[in-house]
Amino acid sequence: MKATAEVQVIPVGVGVSVRTWIQRVYEVLGESGLEPRLHPNGTDVEGELAVVFDAVRRVHETLHAEGVPRLETFIKIGTRTDKEPSLAGKMF
Amino acid sequence: MKATAEVQVIPVGVGVSVRTWIQRVYEVLGESGLEPRLHPNGTDVEGELAVVFDAVRRVHETLHAEGVPRLETFIKIGTRTDKEPSLAGKMF
Amino acid sequence: MKATAEVQVIPVGVGVSVRTWIQRVYEVLGESGLEPRLHPNGTDVEGELAVVFDAVRRVHETLHAEGVPRLETFIKIGTRTDKEPSLAGKMF
Amino acid sequence: MKATAEVQVIPVGVGVSVRTWIQRVYEVLGESGLEPRLHPNGTDVEGELAVVFDAVRRVHETLHAEGVPRLETFIKIGTRTDKEPSLAGKMF
Repeated sequence: MKATAEVQVIPVGVGVSVRTWIQRVYEVLGESGLEPRLHPNGTDVEGELAVVFDAVRRVHETLHAEGVPRLETFIKIGTRTDKEPSLAGKMF
Repeated sequence: MKATAEVQVIPVGVGVSVRTWIQRVYEVLGESGLEPRLHPNGTDVEGELAVVFDAVRRVHETLHAEGVPRLETFIKIGTRTDKEPSLAGKMF
Repeated sequence: MKATAEVQVIPVGVGVSVRTWIQRVYEVLGESGLEPRLHPNGTDVEGELAVVFDAVRRVHETLHAEGVPRLETFIKIGTRTDKEPSLAGKMF
Repeated sequence: MKATAEVQVIPVGVGVSVRTWIQRVYEVLGESGLEPRLHPNGTDVEGELAVVFDAVRRVHETLHAEGVPRLETFIKIGTRTDKEPSLAGKMF
């Protein structure tokens, strides 16, 4: 099942500036072949829902392994059966 | 990796009252053994992150199969390495 | 216009444990007369939308004044015209 | 207090296609002078927090007045005291 998604990861416990970690989020999402698109409040991806969720799980595993003690993540998922869901189709 | 989560599913295109569908969300989440806890703005679960994500994917598959044409879902995920994450630990 | 809402405030830059600050969020929301109800992933309130938003603004002002350098807040707002919106009405 | 924000409004009870209503959201946000920036999962704005909240309230009032019976809105708010918050500053 294909989905559009927005993923925002907030690293907690690594100080007030988290830019380096957001770049890691973007990189790890991209390693799943999802073509992430960064915007100021998250990263948009589209693809198989299972792939999106696997990618987010890897983000958590990676950032914890690299030293972030706590992560709060917000995900928006959109699916529909009346037509193929796509990020492009949500713009006007 | 264990996580705490909140899942809110919004059925779109099935009218203004969606109570029946929210009950289905709750049921399907429960079928994953996650012990869902309903509150007015979502359902809380805790468990392995992969299990949580699988359960949400099944919610989407089930509701679409049962006639909902569009779903917008909001997920909050919390993980941490300094101690075991739990829903109970987030209360005071 | 009456609304139901969920408010989750994530303090960033004050370490991995943020319990004390979440208690402050709860207190400041309560000072607006909103009868906040804590759950593991946020605090539910209901009331006039303008009152809810004013309360959230005061939360940001208060926590910054008390030393939190950065706040990321997630708000869910529900309004409807077909019947009076209420937190109780969203339970089953 | 200046804030960055993301606003996503989901009209419920007006069918599966909500594009026309999302355009209205964008228009009403723009009438507050906020220079909204649409992306697939919401609209980004930046400005005084009170202005942002007022604009969202007007969105709810307007769409209800124009016939949408139910609205579920998701707002992300970011504020910080260590430097001026801006949407541009959240990109890399």
